[in-house]
Amino acid sequence: MHPFFTFEGPEGSGKSTQIQLLYEDLAAYYDVLLVRDPGGTKIGEHIRTLLLNTAGMDIDSRTETLLFAAARAQLVEEVIRPALEAGRVVLCDRYTDSTLAYQGYGRSQGLALLRTLNAYATAGLQPCLRFYLNLSPEEGLKRIRETRISHSHSARDWNRMDAQDLAFHRSVHAGYLALIQENPAQWECLDANLDPAELQRQISRKTISMLPTPCD
Amino acid sequence: MHPFFTFEGPEGSGKSTQIQLLYEDLAAYYDVLLVRDPGGTKIGEHIRTLLLNTAGMDIDSRTETLLFAAARAQLVEEVIRPALEAGRVVLCDRYTDSTLAYQGYGRSQGLALLRTLNAYATAGLQPCLRFYLNLSPEEGLKRIRETRISHSHSARDWNRMDAQDLAFHRSVHAGYLALIQENPAQWECLDANLDPAELQRQISRKTISMLPTPCD
Repeated sequence: MHPFFTFEGPEGSGKSTQIQLLYEDLAAYYDVLLVRDPGGTKIGEHIRTLLLNTAGMDIDSRTETLLFAAARAQLVEEVIRPALEAGRVVLCDRYTDSTLAYQGYGRSQGLALLRTLNAYATAGLQPCLRFYLNLSPEEGLKRIRETRISHSHSARDWNRMDAQDLAFHRSVHAGYLALIQENPAQWECLDANLDPAELQRQISRKTISMLPTPCD
Repeated sequence: MHPFFTFEGPEGSGKSTQIQLLYEDLAAYYDVLLVRDPGGTKIGEHIRTLLLNTAGMDIDSRTETLLFAAARAQLVEEVIRPALEAGRVVLCDRYTDSTLAYQGYGRSQGLALLRTLNAYATAGLQPCLRFYLNLSPEEGLKRIRETRISHSHSARDWNRMDAQDLAFHRSVHAGYLALIQENPAQWECLDANLDPAELQRQISRKTISMLPTPCD
């Protein structure tokens, strides 16, 4: 199976930091590519901007789902699949499971349809392992609020995704746990409350255990 | 059934002119709304711009399909469905059949999947009648080229959709004819070579025959 690892978790879980640290860890020995979904392509970044800046536009939940799928289709065909075919290790910040958790469990869209959509958008490309950084919805929101207060004039502005309420985050969290329970072998579920350095060690160890020994 | 009419046909068929003339014809007696797909909403117009300006971006065919579906979902929920519920007559320039013809027949994507995607994007909303302005692919391309020469400095620039070759247009044309043959009662197929005024009369007559007599 291709060395394709995805990272899931709520906002505030430290996911983006951890994936960056893993990238740095691996880059000494492997040809690694780090991408984010949505994003990673010119079209995908346009779509990402549209998705994160729809304040006042009242985006329909199906439109949202389809835009995520469109960005993902482009990312897979233009970036991820060619990288894997060239023998690179690919780390992806969010992927198809985000659609199942956020649009499926969070917005009550039918899972069967979302799985069909995911399979279409990715032409069936699945990760070899999905990391989940587990954090209670309450703790996640607390961390986001703290970040906002200390960076209130930074680029990290309040955006539409963050504006969802606690009930939504609880549904998403329950959704991830249900997905993991359904297919535990596909997942590595880690405690996002751990010390970041310890979390990093666990993620690196697990990833490296699934990669071939580097040639040189 | 809701008074929801869609208009399909190749570029150069006079579709946009005819739908505008029908709108003017009906507007004296009915509360009519004219929209175009993709487009018709703030998000949809962003997506339309993205779809028509991807020169050099090498858009994946699934990304393209999903972007059309996203724009359509927003158009249905934000504009078409509320208008129909308010008793308005809705005329839509392109709709789900364009996806079947262009992405399905034109780009060889599976029709079953595209139908699932259409049903999802529209939450099942179907037109009461689909007009098809039938024109041979050769004649259509000839008309487009003539328009370009006479408006070479106008807003009607060469765009990605127009850059498709004749073989593609032939597949699309064959696709429309197959869709019509499959469900002839859903369609009104008209000869786009007719004199525009005669074409207008035929479209108006058929549309009005399906509407209730205006109250005042």
